[in-house]
Parts: sequence; C-alpha cells; structure tokens
Amino acid sequence: MAAVSTTPKILPSPAATMSSVNIPNTSQSQLLFRSHLHKPNMPKFLVSRPNLHNTCNPHILCSQTDNPKPTPRPDYIPNRISDPNYVRIFDTTLRDGEQSPGASLTSKEKLDIARKLAKLGVDIIEAGFPASSKDDAEAVKMIAKEVGNAVDKDGYVPVICGLSRCNRNDIQTAWDAVKYAKRPRIHTFIATSPIHLEYKLRKSKEQVIEIARNMVKFARELGCDDVEFSPEDAGRSEREFLYQILGEVIKVGATTLNIPDTVGYNVPDEYSQLIADIKSNTPGIDNVIISTHCQNDLGLSTANTLAGACAGARQLEVTINGIGERAGNASLEEVVMTLNCRGEHVLGGLYTGINTKHIYVTSKMVEEYTGLHVQPHKAIVGANAFAHESGIHQDGMLKHKGTYEIISPEDIGYERSNEAGIVLGKLSGRHALRNRLAELGYELEDDQLATVFEHFKAVAEQKKIITDADLGALVRDEVFQPEVVWKLHDLQVTCGTLGLSTATVKLIDADGREHVACSVGTGPVDSAYKAVDLIVKEPVTLVEYSMNAVTEGNDAIATTRVVIRPENKRMITHAHTGESVQRTFSGVAAGMDIVVSSVKAYIGALNKMIGFNERSQTKIPAERTPVSA
Amino acid sequence: MAAVSTTPKILPSPAATMSSVNIPNTSQSQLLFRSHLHKPNMPKFLVSRPNLHNTCNPHILCSQTDNPKPTPRPDYIPNRISDPNYVRIFDTTLRDGEQSPGASLTSKEKLDIARKLAKLGVDIIEAGFPASSKDDAEAVKMIAKEVGNAVDKDGYVPVICGLSRCNRNDIQTAWDAVKYAKRPRIHTFIATSPIHLEYKLRKSKEQVIEIARNMVKFARELGCDDVEFSPEDAGRSEREFLYQILGEVIKVGATTLNIPDTVGYNVPDEYSQLIADIKSNTPGIDNVIISTHCQNDLGLSTANTLAGACAGARQLEVTINGIGERAGNASLEEVVMTLNCRGEHVLGGLYTGINTKHIYVTSKMVEEYTGLHVQPHKAIVGANAFAHESGIHQDGMLKHKGTYEIISPEDIGYERSNEAGIVLGKLSGRHALRNRLAELGYELEDDQLATVFEHFKAVAEQKKIITDADLGALVRDEVFQPEVVWKLHDLQVTCGTLGLSTATVKLIDADGREHVACSVGTGPVDSAYKAVDLIVKEPVTLVEYSMNAVTEGNDAIATTRVVIRPENKRMITHAHTGESVQRTFSGVAAGMDIVVSSVKAYIGALNKMIGFNERSQTKIPAERTPVSA
Repeated sequence: MAAVSTTPKILPSPAATMSSVNIPNTSQSQLLFRSHLHKPNMPKFLVSRPNLHNTCNPHILCSQTDNPKPTPRPDYIPNRISDPNYVRIFDTTLRDGEQSPGASLTSKEKLDIARKLAKLGVDIIEAGFPASSKDDAEAVKMIAKEVGNAVDKDGYVPVICGLSRCNRNDIQTAWDAVKYAKRPRIHTFIATSPIHLEYKLRKSKEQVIEIARNMVKFARELGCDDVEFSPEDAGRSEREFLYQILGEVIKVGATTLNIPDTVGYNVPDEYSQLIADIKSNTPGIDNVIISTHCQNDLGLSTANTLAGACAGARQLEVTINGIGERAGNASLEEVVMTLNCRGEHVLGGLYTGINTKHIYVTSKMVEEYTGLHVQPHKAIVGANAFAHESGIHQDGMLKHKGTYEIISPEDIGYERSNEAGIVLGKLSGRHALRNRLAELGYELEDDQLATVFEHFKAVAEQKKIITDADLGALVRDEVFQPEVVWKLHDLQVTCGTLGLSTATVKLIDADGREHVACSVGTGPVDSAYKAVDLIVKEPVTLVEYSMNAVTEGNDAIATTRVVIRPENKRMITHAHTGESVQRTFSGVAAGMDIVVSSVKAYIGALNKMIGFNERSQTKIPAERTPVSA
Repeated sequence: MAAVSTTPKILPSPAATMSSVNIPNTSQSQLLFRSHLHKPNMPKFLVSRPNLHNTCNPHILCSQTDNPKPTPRPDYIPNRISDPNYVRIFDTTLRDGEQSPGASLTSKEKLDIARKLAKLGVDIIEAGFPASSKDDAEAVKMIAKEVGNAVDKDGYVPVICGLSRCNRNDIQTAWDAVKYAKRPRIHTFIATSPIHLEYKLRKSKEQVIEIARNMVKFARELGCDDVEFSPEDAGRSEREFLYQILGEVIKVGATTLNIPDTVGYNVPDEYSQLIADIKSNTPGIDNVIISTHCQNDLGLSTANTLAGACAGARQLEVTINGIGERAGNASLEEVVMTLNCRGEHVLGGLYTGINTKHIYVTSKMVEEYTGLHVQPHKAIVGANAFAHESGIHQDGMLKHKGTYEIISPEDIGYERSNEAGIVLGKLSGRHALRNRLAELGYELEDDQLATVFEHFKAVAEQKKIITDADLGALVRDEVFQPEVVWKLHDLQVTCGTLGLSTATVKLIDADGREHVACSVGTGPVDSAYKAVDLIVKEPVTLVEYSMNAVTEGNDAIATTRVVIRPENKRMITHAHTGESVQRTFSGVAAGMDIVVSSVKAYIGALNKMIGFNERSQTKIPAERTPVSA
C-alpha cells in the first residue's frame, strides 16, 4: 500500500506574523530576557503581582475558577500554532514509557493505549521506535492506520510519530510505519553533550552537525512534512553548539525542535533559561515549534516542563503516570492539570486540548498493561490523591470541598462511588453493567461485554456489592489480556507451614488438548509455577511478582502482576544505548483466590512472550550512532 | 520529672549583622526584587549565565562535581543561622507523613524512624501531634527523651518538635512531650486564608491575629525558646494579612515562620514570590528563620520547596519518600539530592547537613512501617531510579556511568550488589551476616541478630544465594514488627479452581496457649483470615492488601502488607479537620509461601492494633480551632 499523507504543507511564517506570535529576537542579556516576562506572549510562571492576588479566589475550585469554557483546538500545522497560548501535548508513553524495565507492551496493548490517548485528545502520539524490532514497527504501523486515521467530528486526529536515530535505515523504517497516518511525523535525534560526543558517539561536533543535517533532509525527501529533531542531552550541551546544530536542521526542514534534559539534571529556572536562550539565539527558530522533554531524576520534571512552556516551548513531551526509564518523565496528568488549574492566572493563559475526563481510565490502563504501579501518594492519579478517598470518616470531610481539595476528582473522570450512588449487585443486568462501564470510561465490544458479564455474575454470586473498583478489575482482567495460547483449566494446591507445598495444574493448549502436571515447591505459587513450566517448557526467570487488592474486605478482588524474562532470546535494540537488550513480559490477572490469579498472571505473561514474533535484529550501524531523546 | 531545656537563648540580631546575612528590605516592586537575584545571599535557581556553562562539567558525576568536601554544620540557634548558605531540613514524616491513610505507626516504630532521622542528620524532627492522642504524646515524649538527648561527637542533636493547634491545651500537651529534649520546639498553627477563615474557623482576621499572638506568647511563657508558627493555607492567603499576623507573632517570640502551601496549589515562581514578599514586607522578619512546607497536589512540591529556599527560606519541611495526606509532601531525598547535586552551581551554594548515605535504608524503613509503597519510577529511591538496576543487560551499560547517571547509588547508601561482590549463602556465618547488614545500614541488637540469623539459615537451606534484597526483607520481617500478642504456629491450606478453599490455623496467645480453628472461604487468604478471626475475635475490615517479591526467581521472598480498620474504636484527632477519625493499622511479613506471609502480616496488623492503648479522646475546644500546616 502506498503512503497517503495528508499532512498540511508547512506555511512560511512571514516576519510580521512571527513577531506578533513569537517572541522577537532581542538581546541575550539576562536583564533584557527578564523584561520579556511581562509581554503577554511570553508568560513567566508569575506574570505580574496584581494578578497573583487575583488567583486566590478562595471560594471556588480550580476547575471552576480557571477553566470556564473549552477553547477550540487550533488547526494542525506542523511548524506553527495559530493561537500563541495553545500548548501541544506529545505523549511518549508508548515509546519512552515502554522502555521501563518490565513494561513491554504487545501490539494489541499499544493499540488500546493509543486509542485512549486519542480520546484524551493528545496532539501527538509517539507510537514507538520502529527500528528497534519488527514487532515495534508493526505496532506503529497498526496505530498509524487505525488511530492515525480516525478523524473526529471537530477535525481532530492525532499526529502519529515514530522515533529514529540519525541514520537512513532508522528513518526509512520509521517512515514506512508512520506514513499510513493522516498526520505522520518522524522524530530523529543525535547526542550533542560533550560527555556523549566523547564517550558514546566518538565524533566531532562538525561530524554530528553533518549527520543531523543530512538525516533531517533525508526524512523530508521521503515525503514527511513533519520532522522533529532532538539534540540528546541538550541539558548538558554547550549553548553555541546547540544554536548552531538547531539552526542547521531548521534550514533543511525540521518543524519541531525538542530540547531534552535527558539525564534529569536541570532545575526549572535553568531549563527555562535554556529554552529562552535557544529561542533568542537560534537562526530561523520562529519558523518552528520548540518542545520540552524532561526526565525526572531529581523529581523536577513537571516543574521543568512548565518552566519550558512559560519560556516559549509549545510542545510538551510527557507520559501517562510519568513512567519511563529510571525515574521516568514528566507526567501528562500533572502537567495538564496544572495548566488546567492555574494556566489562566499564573501561567500566562497557556492551555491544552486535553479532555481531562479520560485521565483516570487511561492512567489505570497504562498501570495494568505496563505493570508499573502508581504509588498511593502520586499526584492526581494516586489512590490517596483525593481527600475523600483517604479512608477517614466521610463525615469528617468538611462541607466545603475547596477547603482542602483544589481539583475535583470528576475532572479526571474519577467518580466518587458514594456520591454517584450506583452500586451493582447480583440482580443487575447486562444493560446496567454496560452503562456503568461506559460511565467509568470502559467502552467494550459486544463479545467483550458478554465475557465480562459472565465473570461479573460469577463474582456477584459470592460478593454482595460490586463496586466500581471491582468492575475495573474485572474489565482489565478480561479485556486487557494477550492472545491466549495456554489457558488454565484447573488448579489444586495444598500448602502451609508444614512445608511440601504441592500443586496440580491442568492447562489447555491452542488446539484444545489438556495437559496435566504436578510439582512440589517452596510455596503454593512456586509449586504451581513449576507445574506450569513442566507443561509449557519455556525457560524463563520470574523478575517481578506483586499483588494488590483493589477493594476492601477479605473477599476483595486482588490483582496479581508478574514480570518474566525469557532466557537468551527476544532481544530488542535499546533506544538509549543502541545495544541489544532482553525484553521482559508482564502478565496480570484478578480474582478472589490469590493462588489462582497468580497462576493466571504467569500464564498471561507466558502467552504474551510466546505471542511476540521472533525478532530479526536490526543491524546496528558499525559507526555506532546510538541513542535517544 | 521537670523540664530540662538546654536550648541556647535566642540571640538578638543587630541590624549590622542582619543586613550582611539577610536580604535588606528594599522596595516591593518586582523589578527591584528581581535585581536581588544577583546578590550572593539571594540565590535564584539560575544565578548567572557564565555559571550555567560551568555547571556542565560533563565528565564527572554530580556527587563528585558539586559536593567536594563536607562543610561543618553551623551551631544551632533557634532564630538564626551563622552561615547564610546553610539550609535546615525539618522532617515531618512522623507527623504529616503518618497522617496518610493506613500509615499509623506504633511508638516503637516512631522511635526507630526517629533514630534513623538522627543518623541522616535531620536538623528538626517533627515527632508528632501530641494533642491528637495519648499514644502520640507518649511517642513524642519517648523520642524527646532518647533521640533528643543523643548528642554526637560533633555536638549535633536534632531538635524535637511537637505540633499543636492554636489553643492552650494543645500547646501545653506539646510542651509536656517535647520538653525532655535538649532542643525542644513547639510548632503551632492557625489558618489564614479567606476560605478557611470563613468555612472552617468562622473567625475574623482580628480574632485570628489575637489567638496567634496569645498562643505564641503562651508557648514562650512555658519556657520554650524555640517556637514555630504557621499560617495554614498561606499559599491562598492575602498578602497584607500575612505580613500583619507574622509581624505580630515575631513580636511575641516566634523564632521560625513556616509558610505552608497547604493545598499544593502554588507553582514555583509564585511560591518563591510569596517567600520573597514575606521577607521584604514583614516587620522583624530578619530576626527569624523562614520555612517552606509544600504539598504535592500538582506534582510541584520539590520545585516549590527549592524555589522557596532560593528566595530566602532556610528551613525546608519534607518527608521521607514524600509521603503525607493526598499527594504527600516534598520528599526529603529529592530536595536534599538536588541541593547536593546542583547546589554549588545553580542554587547559589545552598547546602544541608544531611548524611545522604542513610537515605536508602531510611526510605526502606518508612516504606515498610507505613505500608506506603514507593513506585518503581520514584526519583532517587524507586526500584528503577538507577540505570543499572533496570533489568537490562549489565553489558549494555556504557563504560562511563555519567553518560546516563547523575547520582551514584552509593551516595544514598544503595550498594550495587554485583559490584560489591558480596553474596551470602548457607555457609555464611553470623559474623558475615552482621557485617553485611551493617554495610546495608541495619544495626541490630544481639537478640535481633540471633533471630535474623536463625531465619537466614532456614532460607539459605532452600535458596542458594541470599542477596542484599533478601537480607533487607528478612531484617524488616524480624525486626520491624510490633510486639507479639498472637503468634502463628501452624497453617494448612487447600485451594484451587474447584472452590471450597479451606484453611486450618493454630495460633499461640500471649500466655502460650494453643488455639485451633478452621474455615472455608473464597480463596486461601480469605479462608485463613476467617479462621484467624474465629480465634482472635477482633472485628476488623481489611482495607488494603498487597504483595511484592523482593528478589528474582520463583523462590523469591515476597513481602505482604495488609491494612486493617477496627470497627468503631481507636479514634484519633485529625490534625487537619480537628475531628475524630478512625485509625488504620498495617502489618508486614515476608516469606517464600505467600499464603503463610499473608497470614503473618494479618496477625501483625492485629497485634499492632491490639497493642495500641485505648485512647482517651482529647476534648475538641467548643469554638472549633481546628487545623494544620
């Protein structure tokens, strides 16, 4: 199938328009820079003192105060935004987030998450790093074809972006995957900091500029009108070199320049100064969009991202739940809710196109699929984030919510079950279930609904009241599952303090044949897993094992997650180091019997692993052009 | 026993000294304020541009670059610090952190944590809110007596602080608990924002000023030379009212003024402006220390705290792991490591007295005791925070660590086990165990070591290699336990997909008598818990249940945590709302059999609950003077 790109052509930005939309290139001195702060188009965190006093309308919730009516999203043009206050949200959960240990996602899971990101209204979805593996390329292509062509009634459709290192093979592979989207983008990067030049690339500055220029040009020549370039480790790069390389890639057609703080080293004013300096000193910068990408190693990624926006960045790279390698990235929900809550008054009127009502369900989906827990005190989406859910007496909550609550949980799509008053039980029908699930953000196909309903009835037999949390666990258990290769039929376990835990399992294979095995082990899970291994015969190491009850009470539904690592196969090219690394696979299952759900989760992880195509390794260029944004 | 306070007398701060140490009171205009940024004593995140370029010494790790030699800690004087760059760390894990749902700590656990905080070198330990319950008052007194009197060879001993609302009873109760410390402090607070005045206090500004003045005076009259005052919800309070009330409490002897962003509403520049405005406009402010207290509702608490320090605050209120109500507080490890890593170059030379090598073990202890998980991508202390632990090929890690790692794990006391090369096995003796535990930061009494050694040998029989993570789990399981009332003797469980899970338990009571019961249930844990309930007969609700394997492999040791809520007793006065709320209790256990460890954790939580003294409720003043910082 040929590429069908309907990306709008890049509009030349006449000087007159530029100076009204962008910040003029003025002197580089800090004093003059700071004088920008008072211009309406150059918001600083704190715009002016009188405004500060206005922010404290103490009787109203943030959501009611600061975000009175939705503003229409400006039309998408790669290198410009018609409204100077509109900030694009670039979600890299599927690329940077998936690089977290154990977070490997199947193509189906990636597609599910991409659909949710489109519901959220994310402007750009970085769907993967196609050159890393055939499977990743396939997933990006699938997302480009489906999610990248689902134009909504307002004309919105997300840009689908693929990451690539600065070499022809990576860029070609990325283009071959994203070109099916209505708005395809290639994101290419090369390191620019002295430490990376010396120890990783082993190249001179001149060589790096040459590579960057040639590769951005190559991406444009392929027919991609929307090309993002990142100087990796920009946070530790020399200023003059940055101005130079960025100026060069603009000349050959880069439309977005991303400035990553790759090692999470910057503090907010430092990062904001970096963005401002680039804005003031890079030739041709007014013709492109500046983007932030902040890692969280010091816990400052959200603040750095917002500081970057206030200094002129109009694309913010984030992930759901802030996941990513090491300490992760800036989290979408924190960045978006801060802009939503304080944008109008202390962040210069900046706003996004995000439909915040979908935040909670997207957060939950990413948590389940990646196996990366969110801590209870995680801002916005943690279990304790809202005061009313703190397990303290509901009576103790003060009449006026705004006393301690600045965001209403409904704003992120998190219903208070005690207020909604809707609780399902064994007499509830399929229609009531479908409605409640839709209210919770789960939209199921008919066959999925049928399966969930069946499971729902089984649980309702044993449990009087089915809460929203129970429902979420049921849906995630039934719907968020890999394709079935092996299926658990029966399990029988004896264990206790006397030792000699023994498990017997009966599994059904893809052809419907039954297999039975038994084993002893150090505990019920160990013995059951050993029995499964006797049947499945895939040598793996159990890397992680965890479990959480999703509801209160002894008869709660508990969700089990396991992460396994296959022995000596299923390698993938790592975006950072450019070397081959081993994938790990997670499995999730929910149920009232923790031993049964542990075994189901293990079989789920095995199925996910088996379902992955054997990957033919991408050849790594001999000159070692590794790495990432 | 009479109060023995050796707190140094407050030194008058002559005008000449003031202006050399503090920022002079200049004009309030923003332009003039910004000109302060270039003064050495008024660091802004970004001090100057030439400095910025210096920060990027790309060949060396942060820890080596920015923190070349330890600076001696200035002598403690409540209202001043001789070195203008020294920043005090005020840890409120035991007060604000303990308010998190399910995080209730026993007195013994609080004492353990307080000892660790002293090892960390925290300047001030907020040990509790003595008026909230007799148990809390007892814990604060115990900490004041022991930790508050353990002066080290350099003369360091932490200040022990007790929280109190602005009423005589609270202040008296706080003083009765903290007065045993060498350096006792009373921290009193009253709300000042319009929304709190109107909806919570129902008082006029004049009434609130009068109460604050009288209560600070009362605290000083009790003999307390170190009094902290907080205007609650300062982040949403009117500026002029703040200057006025703060000026009044300074007159009557407040020595530290804490400026809380109680609802986590501020962004960094806004909060820094708040601190700077208070510093410029409050009469007598140069005679006291300004403090930050930032909640994390928008994910900005670390950035806000640092912005406050750069604007002149010299005390930072934080918690270990950032725990606290809702989205928690600024986290000690993020704030301290940012100052440690970037203080010298981009944070104006600010530094703390924290011994960062104790961060990791303290983080683990708080995680275990409170039952509040840290997410894998939590900055500094999360499981994935350091690149080498990411589960990817160790070979794939680049030769030069600084390429992707800005903090060395050793800096926070986290040994890389593959580098340390020390792994214990079944032939390891007690001496090797003690040495390795000491290296990991666990210093045990002889009887504790004996118990851990016994458990260690039992595990080593079944598991070839005992890693550091295994050791940590063993220690936490044996040592971090409440006093034993009920003890598990035997357990036998049958479960599986056929239903009818059945458990039999044998428990030993405090007098050594055996009790046996059996029950069926929806799963192995449900049936075992029901059998325990038949014996213990304490009606509780299971609020949370979770489990994590701490090491790799099927034979990993898994840690189980449960949180229970007793029915209709064990109430406590909530610091925020001033109303009675129900405590919850957590239990933790580790083992290779998840059903056994689940039962042990449940019994641990029951023991903790039973061990709590029945609390006689503190009477809440009729005029409703609730609430917190």
